[in-house]
Amino acid sequence: MQNKIKLAKIISKIENEHPDTEKILNDVWHNVGSAYRIGITGPPGVGKSTLVDKIALQLSEQNLKIAIVSVDPSSPFGGGALLGDRIRMNELSLNPNIFIRSLATRGSLGGLSVKTQDICDVIDSFGYDIILIETVGVGQIELDIVEASDITTVVLVPESGDDIQSMKSGLMEIGNIFVINKSDRDGANSLETNINSMLQLKKQYKNSNDYDIPVIQTVATKNKNIDLLLEHILRYKTKLKQNNDWFLARKNRIENKINELITTHLLENFWSDERKSIIQEHLKKSNYFDNTPYQIFHKLLNVK
Amino acid sequence: MQNKIKLAKIISKIENEHPDTEKILNDVWHNVGSAYRIGITGPPGVGKSTLVDKIALQLSEQNLKIAIVSVDPSSPFGGGALLGDRIRMNELSLNPNIFIRSLATRGSLGGLSVKTQDICDVIDSFGYDIILIETVGVGQIELDIVEASDITTVVLVPESGDDIQSMKSGLMEIGNIFVINKSDRDGANSLETNINSMLQLKKQYKNSNDYDIPVIQTVATKNKNIDLLLEHILRYKTKLKQNNDWFLARKNRIENKINELITTHLLENFWSDERKSIIQEHLKKSNYFDNTPYQIFHKLLNVK
Repeated sequence: MQNKIKLAKIISKIENEHPDTEKILNDVWHNVGSAYRIGITGPPGVGKSTLVDKIALQLSEQNLKIAIVSVDPSSPFGGGALLGDRIRMNELSLNPNIFIRSLATRGSLGGLSVKTQDICDVIDSFGYDIILIETVGVGQIELDIVEASDITTVVLVPESGDDIQSMKSGLMEIGNIFVINKSDRDGANSLETNINSMLQLKKQYKNSNDYDIPVIQTVATKNKNIDLLLEHILRYKTKLKQNNDWFLARKNRIENKINELITTHLLENFWSDERKSIIQEHLKKSNYFDNTPYQIFHKLLNVK
Repeated sequence: MQNKIKLAKIISKIENEHPDTEKILNDVWHNVGSAYRIGITGPPGVGKSTLVDKIALQLSEQNLKIAIVSVDPSSPFGGGALLGDRIRMNELSLNPNIFIRSLATRGSLGGLSVKTQDICDVIDSFGYDIILIETVGVGQIELDIVEASDITTVVLVPESGDDIQSMKSGLMEIGNIFVINKSDRDGANSLETNINSMLQLKKQYKNSNDYDIPVIQTVATKNKNIDLLLEHILRYKTKLKQNNDWFLARKNRIENKINELITTHLLENFWSDERKSIIQEHLKKSNYFDNTPYQIFHKLLNVK
């Protein structure tokens, strides 16, 4: 418990971009790299939270240390958390093997991927074996989570098949495992068939003959097929380690982190008060047509 | 027709980041600013294309020049265009008052907003009165379109009400007008009630008492209420002009454009061959733990 409190405090510092962030991440660095990072995404209402709970519970019984990170695309106006039902997670959070944390995305969409990654690094360094990164599949956030994860689990429900087009446009791209949750409802089998034929198409197009992406029907509330899902998730880890992808994912994350540090640094350096006032002057209504954006750009560059 | 071909060629140059881009955009600059840019977004399958067609046809009958820009979040694997049904638009494209163009988003997600904006600037300079920017609502792309537009029209269908949560998470934020298309199907009225109560909530939260966001039921295939929708869309333009938002939108777009030029310039300058080889060396597997990302970052900064 003591350790969990310490971890929670460090995460808050990173979340709030505290000046200690660099030191914290440098200090943990040599203990980062062994946690298996599992992204779980999908549309709202498919039962992701319940699924994540069940996965965490089963894994904790194997005496593994599990962290759950909920990335929460809060509405900027409502303040309401889509994953706010984490209150019921009190039961889980008392489990000494399970650590739970929500991250708000408010106002930090840009660097979300890197920030999530930094936070997972700290959790990793605290000896957690598995980090479940849960988010609602709403576009950019879900892509950020893919970058922060070793495997992406896409959760759907039988009704998701109604609009096959919407799946083409995003979720189909990112899943390493598909879950049809609430599969005791009508349409689970036909959705499975649909997903499989789309995956087949994708495979042909990519001309790849590696890994077959599994589609698994679950009923999280009844614990149905959670063990089967876990079996596939853990098998994927073995595969990642065998073909070097485990290392490549970490390498990509370091590159992303360095790129973000550099971009932030360059922009902060560039936007001196003088340059800020130049652009504001040019953007006044009365000056609107005096210079094109390119002309203003060159003027800004020429500031000594 | 001659003019349309010329416009199409210029757009292709911008789309492909041709070296002439800067010159083209500088040349048109003084003729940019009068077109009304209408964003139209929503989930797949709600009938956006048909709606856009009907809007374009009605406006063209008023002797206005209309451009339709479809921003197409093509699947990177399938190559299939979600908005590929534009073949049927041949009829429209023969209309001398209507110009149609699809933009692929492949590999350019980052700068999509600015690129769309550049292309709309060129169209604008060709004397088009209205630009309809249509995209499928899949997260980041739809936010890019909001930035490129003066007004955002969110299109839903009665069934969209099934999952009220998913609307909270994005589309509700961005709509200046909501359309319930295919409203001859069950559930249109209850969806309208739901949208209205969410909008009411938003208004209370923001403590604003300006503009009431309209919710309009249409049946695009039967031309039902297209005129009503257009009335609201055009009324919104008057409002934008009255309260200075028309200018502010243009100002924001210029700022975005300049910011993108600067970021691109700074990064291109920074990533010299020497720095690229330093980062590659550090990212070799054998060197993995030698330096933290922050240490590599400082080394890169110290390169003379």
